[in-house]
Amino acid sequence: MTIQNVGQNKVAGGWHKQYTHHSYTLGCNMRFAIFLPKTASNTHSVPVLYWLSGLTCTDENFMQKAGAFKKANELGIAIVACDTSPRGDGVADADQYDLGKGAGFYVDATKQPWSQHYQMYSYVSQELPQLVEKHFPVSRVKSIAGHSMGGHGALVIGLNNPEQFVSISAFSPISNPIKSPWGKKALTEYLGSDIETWKMYDACELLQSKSFDLPILVDQGDADEFLMEQLKPEQLLKAASSKNSKLELRMQHGYDHSYFFISSFIEEHLEFHYKHMSQAS
Amino acid sequence: MTIQNVGQNKVAGGWHKQYTHHSYTLGCNMRFAIFLPKTASNTHSVPVLYWLSGLTCTDENFMQKAGAFKKANELGIAIVACDTSPRGDGVADADQYDLGKGAGFYVDATKQPWSQHYQMYSYVSQELPQLVEKHFPVSRVKSIAGHSMGGHGALVIGLNNPEQFVSISAFSPISNPIKSPWGKKALTEYLGSDIETWKMYDACELLQSKSFDLPILVDQGDADEFLMEQLKPEQLLKAASSKNSKLELRMQHGYDHSYFFISSFIEEHLEFHYKHMSQAS
Repeated sequence: MTIQNVGQNKVAGGWHKQYTHHSYTLGCNMRFAIFLPKTASNTHSVPVLYWLSGLTCTDENFMQKAGAFKKANELGIAIVACDTSPRGDGVADADQYDLGKGAGFYVDATKQPWSQHYQMYSYVSQELPQLVEKHFPVSRVKSIAGHSMGGHGALVIGLNNPEQFVSISAFSPISNPIKSPWGKKALTEYLGSDIETWKMYDACELLQSKSFDLPILVDQGDADEFLMEQLKPEQLLKAASSKNSKLELRMQHGYDHSYFFISSFIEEHLEFHYKHMSQAS
Repeated sequence: MTIQNVGQNKVAGGWHKQYTHHSYTLGCNMRFAIFLPKTASNTHSVPVLYWLSGLTCTDENFMQKAGAFKKANELGIAIVACDTSPRGDGVADADQYDLGKGAGFYVDATKQPWSQHYQMYSYVSQELPQLVEKHFPVSRVKSIAGHSMGGHGALVIGLNNPEQFVSISAFSPISNPIKSPWGKKALTEYLGSDIETWKMYDACELLQSKSFDLPILVDQGDADEFLMEQLKPEQLLKAASSKNSKLELRMQHGYDHSYFFISSFIEEHLEFHYKHMSQAS
């Protein structure tokens, strides 16, 4: 589990750093980025927020556009952003933005040609935290957040691993992928046609199955072009309410699906995670 | 002087909007972006900060990466970001990142093939403010800022038009282009070999020529790879000091030439401009 530093920039008093490593889970080389606040040191470990991005993104979109670092530095939170799929010449791909590279959907694929490399669920929930905890001055206190496909990823990885994370947040998540065109397409390709196998990757199905103690914050713009067809946050709220899970859905008036939306509320998400990280420390 | 809206996003309580228009100065179609704070309305005009970007950029780099909107909305400042050169199929270009499209250097070119369209000095100092003041709820109170090539642009446009702007700021500006490789190459191409014609586009030459009342703030990272060869901020400070002009140069330890640096200090630049805008209102 070695890593190679491929870039670093001082930002907001802390450091943004990029690394590559060979992923044993994905069977390819991957890049990820970490923001380390000024307070992180060998004698002071900090909690980590894992950020999962949406379709077509890499580790760079959030790091360059979200405007999260001033607040993260102030609160003393590290942020890790990974890629959205396996990468490289030998990795299966499709000539479509919503399948293959850039569109891993945070699942462990079971069908050919995807199953060889598309194991993003295990990568994010297991290998990546192990790697980060081995190489950086971070504590084991973790939260998870994401946007769109990554909001879906944050919800399903958080809900399936509630002992690992202290809080979940999402911007514009694909809340009910088994009923959205993006989700149906990707889950059919990666998992096959048996809908039973999709359910562990559907936040609504998970929230309907039992009550969760994990606090969840979801922000959704009401001017989001994907709201009705792809995202369905009202189903998420309904599922959480049915079992009294602690999900807050905030509809944000006038906001769309872009990073302009994320940058408008990311500081509030960091405050939300900080509160729960502090209680867990 | 008509404009066409081509995009808009709510952000931080205000609006980011993109427009195209035909520029009579440049003889081509151009795109620019404006951030309007929540307080801007037909009954309340707001001051404007003009932002000039660096080599290879468009109106989008600053708007997506600088993280300026929360503070700009709070202070009630509009921000306009334009492109870095004329654009379009009929516009002369070079197969180099530091000449031609994306590299207008904010000069009025006098040499072929550039002189037909490369009139960015006049575009930024005259046409663009006229257009913005015609179409948006802004006052005539203006400041100007930029990064790298755009820091150079902000300095020379501000210093040549001190009656138009109340303050200037720059990140990592090309401070003394007549003595830097980037500057010498571009000025030779756009203006010819007579160095006398370059001097109105060199901030050090302008600051050596007389005393300016205009307050100037410059931030420069000391880990900037272009610092010694291309940027030369120490020459800027020397020139300003020689005539008692009000220039503050802040060397920022560990920061590089990227938007990570800009995003770390943009709020302080907005506070700086706001102070002088308020005194002028």
